[in-house]
Amino acid sequence: MQEITLRTERRTQLLDITSQVAESLNGVDGAAAALVYVPHTTAGVTINEDVDPALARDMEAAMEKVVEDGWDWVHDDADGPNAPSHMRASLMSPEVLVPLSEGQLALGRYQGIFFCEFDGPRERKVYVTALR
Amino acid sequence: MQEITLRTERRTQLLDITSQVAESLNGVDGAAAALVYVPHTTAGVTINEDVDPALARDMEAAMEKVVEDGWDWVHDDADGPNAPSHMRASLMSPEVLVPLSEGQLALGRYQGIFFCEFDGPRERKVYVTALR
Amino acid sequence: MQEITLRTERRTQLLDITSQVAESLNGVDGAAAALVYVPHTTAGVTINEDVDPALARDMEAAMEKVVEDGWDWVHDDADGPNAPSHMRASLMSPEVLVPLSEGQLALGRYQGIFFCEFDGPRERKVYVTALR
Repeated sequence: MQEITLRTERRTQLLDITSQVAESLNGVDGAAAALVYVPHTTAGVTINEDVDPALARDMEAAMEKVVEDGWDWVHDDADGPNAPSHMRASLMSPEVLVPLSEGQLALGRYQGIFFCEFDGPRERKVYVTALR
Repeated sequence: MQEITLRTERRTQLLDITSQVAESLNGVDGAAAALVYVPHTTAGVTINEDVDPALARDMEAAMEKVVEDGWDWVHDDADGPNAPSHMRASLMSPEVLVPLSEGQLALGRYQGIFFCEFDGPRERKVYVTALR
Repeated sequence: MQEITLRTERRTQLLDITSQVAESLNGVDGAAAALVYVPHTTAGVTINEDVDPALARDMEAAMEKVVEDGWDWVHDDADGPNAPSHMRASLMSPEVLVPLSEGQLALGRYQGIFFCEFDGPRERKVYVTALR
């Protein structure tokens, strides 16, 4: 299991981590897929187009519309009343599994892997595990 | 493949199954990840914070807002007009894949695995499969 | 890694691909799970009930309510202003992992695997990878 460390800058932020994931797979031999796993509860990971930066911003705004801050929420802890952040993380998913072809991520032509921050800014970790 | 059986008590309910999943992995050796799979169509599984019980209740209520019972739905069968339950199950996801470290679930400090009931109460099953 | 090619007919369409996935696993021996991966950024994949065709239609309509075309979107490219399609794809998920039992998909009794088109009609691909 490899570990990636990253720092987010905004409350809700999609961050392209494709190259860090690819690097962490250097030297992996004979694996069939790479698991990209987020060990946090207010962040997730997804795969989407990494060409137009405006798209990530659109998706950040959309996640705050799919799950609204203004709904009645009860949860409150040391991090504040951040239940919407937890809900967004679960909807986006804590992990993605990407097939490998000859040790390389078999991403589609326009696909990138995005860390999804929903309660930033923070320092975060991502685990990358090769599966046979 | 190991099988967990559980009973849900409410229509929409997030149920912490971390300890059952961990138990079902007892004696697994040399595996890289555990697949937690829900073989139902009105239930799913997610990973989120398992510290504050109010958070699970918040997420249950939120899933009924993200997908509203009051929208026009056509589907109706022996289980009644439960299309919103099916939609919620797909949004939450039918499975999660968790990395293993020395045979143990490599969950983040605050993470737990939650079975997500969207059409309870029912008796349900979860499959756990170790992957190399 | 096996490749499935398919053609969608509508903008938003859930297409049952269970039999194609099962076929692509013919002759796979000793694998523990099958990764069904979509290499596109405006399509995804899910598992749900494949009995009543009305349910797929309900879910198609619901995805257009969970993420609304009428929200403010900035992204625009050769495919047009299709940011909602990208957002729906990420919410639904780019991949599912299904356990195998004696080489067969260990789907629940009512479960099928659905390709989820959010920007059709198009020709699309799906990758199927067996994991040990």
